[in-house]
Amino acid sequence: MKKVFFTLLLVLLVSTMFFAQGPKYVFYFIGDGMAVTQSNAAQLLQSSLTDAETPKLNMYKFPVQGMTTTHAANAFITDSAAAGTALASGYKTNSGVIGLDSTLSNVLESISERVHNMGWKVGIISTVSIGHATPAAFYAHQPSRSSYYEISRQLAESGFAFFGGGDVRYPNGKKGNQENIYDYARENGYQVIQTQEDYEAFDPKNPGSEKVWIINEDVDGGSAMLYSVDNAPAFDVEDITRTAIDYLDNEKGFFLMVEAGKIDWACHANDAAGSIGDTIAFDNAISAAMEFYRENPEDTLIVVTGDHQTGGLTIGFAGTKYASDPSLIAYQNGSQDAFTAKLSNMKDNGELNSFEDDLLPVVEEFFGLYKTSANAENEALLLSALEENKLRAAFEAYVNGTENTDESYLLYGGYNPIAITATHILNNKAGLGWTTYSHTGVPVVTYAMGNGQEMFSGYYDNTDIAKYLFALVK
Amino acid sequence: MKKVFFTLLLVLLVSTMFFAQGPKYVFYFIGDGMAVTQSNAAQLLQSSLTDAETPKLNMYKFPVQGMTTTHAANAFITDSAAAGTALASGYKTNSGVIGLDSTLSNVLESISERVHNMGWKVGIISTVSIGHATPAAFYAHQPSRSSYYEISRQLAESGFAFFGGGDVRYPNGKKGNQENIYDYARENGYQVIQTQEDYEAFDPKNPGSEKVWIINEDVDGGSAMLYSVDNAPAFDVEDITRTAIDYLDNEKGFFLMVEAGKIDWACHANDAAGSIGDTIAFDNAISAAMEFYRENPEDTLIVVTGDHQTGGLTIGFAGTKYASDPSLIAYQNGSQDAFTAKLSNMKDNGELNSFEDDLLPVVEEFFGLYKTSANAENEALLLSALEENKLRAAFEAYVNGTENTDESYLLYGGYNPIAITATHILNNKAGLGWTTYSHTGVPVVTYAMGNGQEMFSGYYDNTDIAKYLFALVK
Repeated sequence: MKKVFFTLLLVLLVSTMFFAQGPKYVFYFIGDGMAVTQSNAAQLLQSSLTDAETPKLNMYKFPVQGMTTTHAANAFITDSAAAGTALASGYKTNSGVIGLDSTLSNVLESISERVHNMGWKVGIISTVSIGHATPAAFYAHQPSRSSYYEISRQLAESGFAFFGGGDVRYPNGKKGNQENIYDYARENGYQVIQTQEDYEAFDPKNPGSEKVWIINEDVDGGSAMLYSVDNAPAFDVEDITRTAIDYLDNEKGFFLMVEAGKIDWACHANDAAGSIGDTIAFDNAISAAMEFYRENPEDTLIVVTGDHQTGGLTIGFAGTKYASDPSLIAYQNGSQDAFTAKLSNMKDNGELNSFEDDLLPVVEEFFGLYKTSANAENEALLLSALEENKLRAAFEAYVNGTENTDESYLLYGGYNPIAITATHILNNKAGLGWTTYSHTGVPVVTYAMGNGQEMFSGYYDNTDIAKYLFALVK
Repeated sequence: MKKVFFTLLLVLLVSTMFFAQGPKYVFYFIGDGMAVTQSNAAQLLQSSLTDAETPKLNMYKFPVQGMTTTHAANAFITDSAAAGTALASGYKTNSGVIGLDSTLSNVLESISERVHNMGWKVGIISTVSIGHATPAAFYAHQPSRSSYYEISRQLAESGFAFFGGGDVRYPNGKKGNQENIYDYARENGYQVIQTQEDYEAFDPKNPGSEKVWIINEDVDGGSAMLYSVDNAPAFDVEDITRTAIDYLDNEKGFFLMVEAGKIDWACHANDAAGSIGDTIAFDNAISAAMEFYRENPEDTLIVVTGDHQTGGLTIGFAGTKYASDPSLIAYQNGSQDAFTAKLSNMKDNGELNSFEDDLLPVVEEFFGLYKTSANAENEALLLSALEENKLRAAFEAYVNGTENTDESYLLYGGYNPIAITATHILNNKAGLGWTTYSHTGVPVVTYAMGNGQEMFSGYYDNTDIAKYLFALVK
């Protein structure tokens, strides 16, 4: 009896594989720097902030998960260019290279280019600069990820239906003497939306153009959207994802890549609050795809992955041993980046002269950390003698300048000494530890839901994700 | 056409689920302290030591993987007792508790007890003490994991067919005045094998007893088998696993739990060499189960998981930025534990008086690290000024004693200051970072192969693993 069932099952499975169509709506969510611990920290903060049964992150609801290795052709620890190229094309290349092989002589077709040529509509979203390595790997081919202007020319030439998120860097070239990139995009048929007002007036279901490029008006010095914890008024990643879905939806099919790029930036700065905020915002964007999937379950595939791990984040710190309290992270009022800007402002205005009188009040205001306080909200945030010493040394280093030694790099990683030290102290009190200011070689998790999901089970390489997608969209 | 296939497929899947039998040979491999990075470090060291195509760890060949949360009833960061109880019974309990719920009033049946009562043969293996928390959770019920003698009484009373691995602690009770536990086991029908000679004479296919308890004669102060990198002459974990399979194999069914307990101990000590050695030995033991699976594919299920992560290990360290070279770990000649014993010996014999003349030569001999050397094998192992200073401070702390401050705990974690500092230096040069001397709250990976494997896909809790097993062996 059992054998008969298994044989019939096998026959049907095989025939289903031959006859069944692959997905025609493909979502590819890439959390830059997001691996096991980035998601888990977000999950833990959510759990610790609520009395209800632990709500699962959306990505944790996916039926299939796999572990994915991320190394570059030339290094265990990849950068985002090599990782993005692998995720887009299925081929390894060297760190720094966009959409070319490691000899720099062969163009690697991306999955987005393939489906564009098949007549699908393609959308590319990034919360950092749209010309940054990860999104660029889906539409550009350049020996160097730093060729920002050339990359944005290739954006305008891609023919893809939708771009959205952060701005480009150097819209007139690095020397400012080249054709304005927005003009060039318009010449190539793009409607370019650059203000929140225009964005709000834009109707993605009646867009008035075949191609659109939407730019967030609230960007930082790197042309990236602001951190979710800094509460920018312009659209967030979930909003632009919903707009893209409405814009791209059509009978023939679409492909949408969404990158959350500042999870990585926050983790470089060992800033759990920034990373968790952007991970939750990213997870909310995934919910938009899940809603679409529920309406089109047979034709939709959603893949969520990270391009590498950043920072060596762990839920566990030597100083707190077995204790942890992720909810303390919620005392941080904005990103470390925002605090750095505040310190810089204070220093410029001559307002940062005394450790006790000038610095400690703003540290308490921003991180909840205190030495003596009338308003302390949580005793766990009291600075220990060791922590106060570290903060004092950081204050001296920032105010008086510091030599660039191996030791100062280990302590501050090139960041504002006060800002990173205060962040470290709060993170450590919450039980979170970090090992580096760079990427790590730790595998990431890949999550899959929908038509073709079963291919994403097991342990495989980042190039395999693209290979599976190429096989599925044939 | 497609709809017809899907409907037929669904009907068959459902009927298969009702009619198909579950597995009757179940392997449960538990790497104590083993999560993503422990396995990955082992994988990377294997890759970097060979010119051939990267050989995959056996666990990475499993078709299904899931992510598993590990928290205890009373803490994000679990201990091995609560985790072992969850993995064995499907219920959360508090840290420190074995096989009881958190009120201590309800006995939680383990999967091993369930199948034992169904008439299967049951085997329990651990590389640490067989009375340690993880193996104990499969046969004992005690409010405290420290009740070693009571736990070993329950071992003798379990009726399980096979125990093997490390020894028990306090075989005559903590005060030495209780019935000898080996005698008690013999009274309960166990053949007790305590020497390597007797082990080699033992034929598991013609054992001459219904129940056997095999003890490794090479154990450390905690009654655990020695680290794989310390090359003990007695049997290793793969060998005892093969012996167990031969002993347990029978038509009715068997359940075998194998714990690699010293991955955890090595990670507490931030000793990558020790962790990697025991992870590879554990992975070799998994190959024995895979061979059995290939001979009995329809009836066999293998599940591999970790009980929690330890140490916050990451492949990425601030001081080496994007560089890493895991192959440097291979320069370490034994476990950190063995080096600690060596230092202790030197100190006792008055041979540890000079940093330059006494310590540096043994550090070079054991770790390859050097300040000046005629025989240096690798320039990457040259001590930097910062590293030399750290080692010198550790030498002073060990020779002259050190105050137990927050700072000294962060540096040394209660371990031998020299041994842990030298280990940290070698690990960091290899690009490996650590965040704690305790466990962490990071999820682990669960791998499954065989009958029922599909249940282990996705993101779930450690209690779910036991629940799936209870459902499968019904």
